[in-house]
Amino acid sequence: MHMTDLIEKKKQGLELTEEEIRFIVNGYTAGDIPDYQMSALMMAILFRGMTIPETTALTMAMAHSGDMVDLSALGAFTADKHSTGGVGDKTSLVLCPMVAACGAKMAKMSGRGLGHTGGTIDKLESFPGFSTSMSPERFLEIAGTVGFVIAGQTANLAPADKKMYALRDVTATVNSIPLIVSSIMSKKLASGAKTIVLDVKTGSGAFMEKEKDAFTLAREMVNVGKQAGRNMAAVVTDMDQPLGFAVGNALEVKEAIAVLRGENVPDLKELCMVLGSNILVRSGLAADEAEARARLEESIESGAALRKLADMVTAQGGDASAVYDVSLLPAAPVQRRVKAPRDGYISAMEAKNIGLVSMHLGGGRATKEDVIDLCVGVVLAAKVGDRLRAGDELAVIHAADGKAAEEAEKELLECYTFSDRKPRRRPFIRGVVT
Amino acid sequence: MHMTDLIEKKKQGLELTEEEIRFIVNGYTAGDIPDYQMSALMMAILFRGMTIPETTALTMAMAHSGDMVDLSALGAFTADKHSTGGVGDKTSLVLCPMVAACGAKMAKMSGRGLGHTGGTIDKLESFPGFSTSMSPERFLEIAGTVGFVIAGQTANLAPADKKMYALRDVTATVNSIPLIVSSIMSKKLASGAKTIVLDVKTGSGAFMEKEKDAFTLAREMVNVGKQAGRNMAAVVTDMDQPLGFAVGNALEVKEAIAVLRGENVPDLKELCMVLGSNILVRSGLAADEAEARARLEESIESGAALRKLADMVTAQGGDASAVYDVSLLPAAPVQRRVKAPRDGYISAMEAKNIGLVSMHLGGGRATKEDVIDLCVGVVLAAKVGDRLRAGDELAVIHAADGKAAEEAEKELLECYTFSDRKPRRRPFIRGVVT
Repeated sequence: MHMTDLIEKKKQGLELTEEEIRFIVNGYTAGDIPDYQMSALMMAILFRGMTIPETTALTMAMAHSGDMVDLSALGAFTADKHSTGGVGDKTSLVLCPMVAACGAKMAKMSGRGLGHTGGTIDKLESFPGFSTSMSPERFLEIAGTVGFVIAGQTANLAPADKKMYALRDVTATVNSIPLIVSSIMSKKLASGAKTIVLDVKTGSGAFMEKEKDAFTLAREMVNVGKQAGRNMAAVVTDMDQPLGFAVGNALEVKEAIAVLRGENVPDLKELCMVLGSNILVRSGLAADEAEARARLEESIESGAALRKLADMVTAQGGDASAVYDVSLLPAAPVQRRVKAPRDGYISAMEAKNIGLVSMHLGGGRATKEDVIDLCVGVVLAAKVGDRLRAGDELAVIHAADGKAAEEAEKELLECYTFSDRKPRRRPFIRGVVT
Repeated sequence: MHMTDLIEKKKQGLELTEEEIRFIVNGYTAGDIPDYQMSALMMAILFRGMTIPETTALTMAMAHSGDMVDLSALGAFTADKHSTGGVGDKTSLVLCPMVAACGAKMAKMSGRGLGHTGGTIDKLESFPGFSTSMSPERFLEIAGTVGFVIAGQTANLAPADKKMYALRDVTATVNSIPLIVSSIMSKKLASGAKTIVLDVKTGSGAFMEKEKDAFTLAREMVNVGKQAGRNMAAVVTDMDQPLGFAVGNALEVKEAIAVLRGENVPDLKELCMVLGSNILVRSGLAADEAEARARLEESIESGAALRKLADMVTAQGGDASAVYDVSLLPAAPVQRRVKAPRDGYISAMEAKNIGLVSMHLGGGRATKEDVIDLCVGVVLAAKVGDRLRAGDELAVIHAADGKAAEEAEKELLECYTFSDRKPRRRPFIRGVVT
């Protein structure tokens, strides 16, 4: 088998066999196939696409390029969740404690944030002493006892994806549906959970700007996961504006705790209910959506979910006091109120740019080496569709100093579009694919 | 300027600027842009194509990546010819002496053959002592005095092309019109001739199998050459069967000499007349085609063209006796007559496979290191459209031994299709683009 022939085949739009795809992935991971052939192939895939059997074979080959984590010791209700990345996305911090309180076992391996979206691990480091490095044994133990653990990568998950992603990043081959599907799903399959729910964002702050593309991605990921014997669901959700009100690490933790204490942050809460009920129903922990939703509500009302968060932070070496007293969370020295510049409705917000405001304040990384400031960020006071009068509070900027806050205000105001007429709103949950 | 952005731009089908293309070619030649980005870009070019300004900019940047040969000392009538490669193509051996006898200066740099098509230098080595290595000064001197010289590469011509071609070969990005145009034309422009004629082959034995693609390639090359201030013409010719009757190095030299001695080998002679008259007319050596053709015929009748071949061989250190006595050319020990297996017309011949028969006999190289046997090959006795009776001579195989001849016969017979009805013939010259 020659790589040049396989590139030619894909270039002509023909279907690669499972054996050919395995040859490619194994050869590339082993270093036998050079980068320049892989990048040419990926560009051909970008133009020609892949069939479902091809995408499945690619995903499976990538998943098997490294460790396949065995979670069988945790029983039948292991679950995992993945988001394609959004601004203000603190979903895992709310969802995991809720479903853990309902009997699911979330053994998550997570990365740090890069660019305009934050990482769950960064957010959790708002708890002093919190650590994500642990042995594989301890990882399984916490998942088993607490029902919820978030570690850095303890296993060698899908090394093929690591290598391929780095290459895609510098060869303009990131935005290909089959390559995105295989990148996300290879890691999820290797992580070992029986039930996988996916949050596919769409809109100006999302990687998949167009809703149609988001649904295609959602369907293909669900399809591949099912082929691999997993319980699957994907939710397509709006990322035309940030999720919830808080953008910034400690600020998002505070908002997550608020929801776990019963406060209603509409889009965030609803997303956790949809993802959570899918986990419970797909894994067999609940008979139907109504039962699942009732149990998830109960996990909040009873305080069980909040306790799960505290237990997890404690188990991972952190000081969980802030779970019960959010004033203990790190706070920025400067808070600057941003006022609405005119009367009218907020008709649009550029979610991605609001993420960048937080990043520029020091809350995100431009490169992997950057050290981030956990305190800073933005707390929105109003969202799309809200009516304001000039001078009303639009947002509060949390900054390290006055100068940074001033610059952030300018940047932030550019993220809004106002109008005199009430804007039409599209539903936050665009659909669920199962 | 970032290479990733430029790949993205081309991927989206947008036009690259001249500056961007120069950045790419210079960066890649210098080693600043890695192979994996270049191969991704070339695959994107393959799918998206290039506009005429882009192709021109790419060709110019590649031409200027190395030496630009200065032929101005040779006067205004410098000419060059390029063929996209065919089986039995001994055109240069006939054409160059003819136009040199008419006043053109052909200062050619040529390569060796690889695969199923032979190289002009290999063929010329049928003359004992013939050498293609010489100083740039001697190169110009022979071109000036004889009017015709064929050297190996004495200058560093289009190193960008060398590097890009090697990469295209292993990334399935060879068959892209703009990449072919820039590869051929960058070397031709760097070679310095004022008038350039191109022979673009089409058909089963040609790289451009479809006539439509061959015309597109011809038009684009003519266009780019004109933009660079050269006199241009391209001829699209049939390569559904070998050119002339002889396939094999010394065998082709013998056939070329026969044409220079006045024998009519229809397709070969006509091709030389069309290419030659275009050189004479485009360069200003003849007023019109009629005058050009008359002068070319005269160069044969007077023996001037034949003398030019002898002069060139002598000037390049070879023994030219064989020009006047072809029995002195190297000859194979075994000649095996191949007979027609049935009555009927030859309706098709697989030109490429006939080239491979010669290669397998030892007359061509599979790898650059192979040593070739100058004597071997095939001489056809009939071509497409000819009617034969079973047992009539179809061809003669020239081989090193009986076993090789026997195997070649089997292979050769598979190259023919016979039919009871006279096949429709398409004209050999499909068109001229100027």
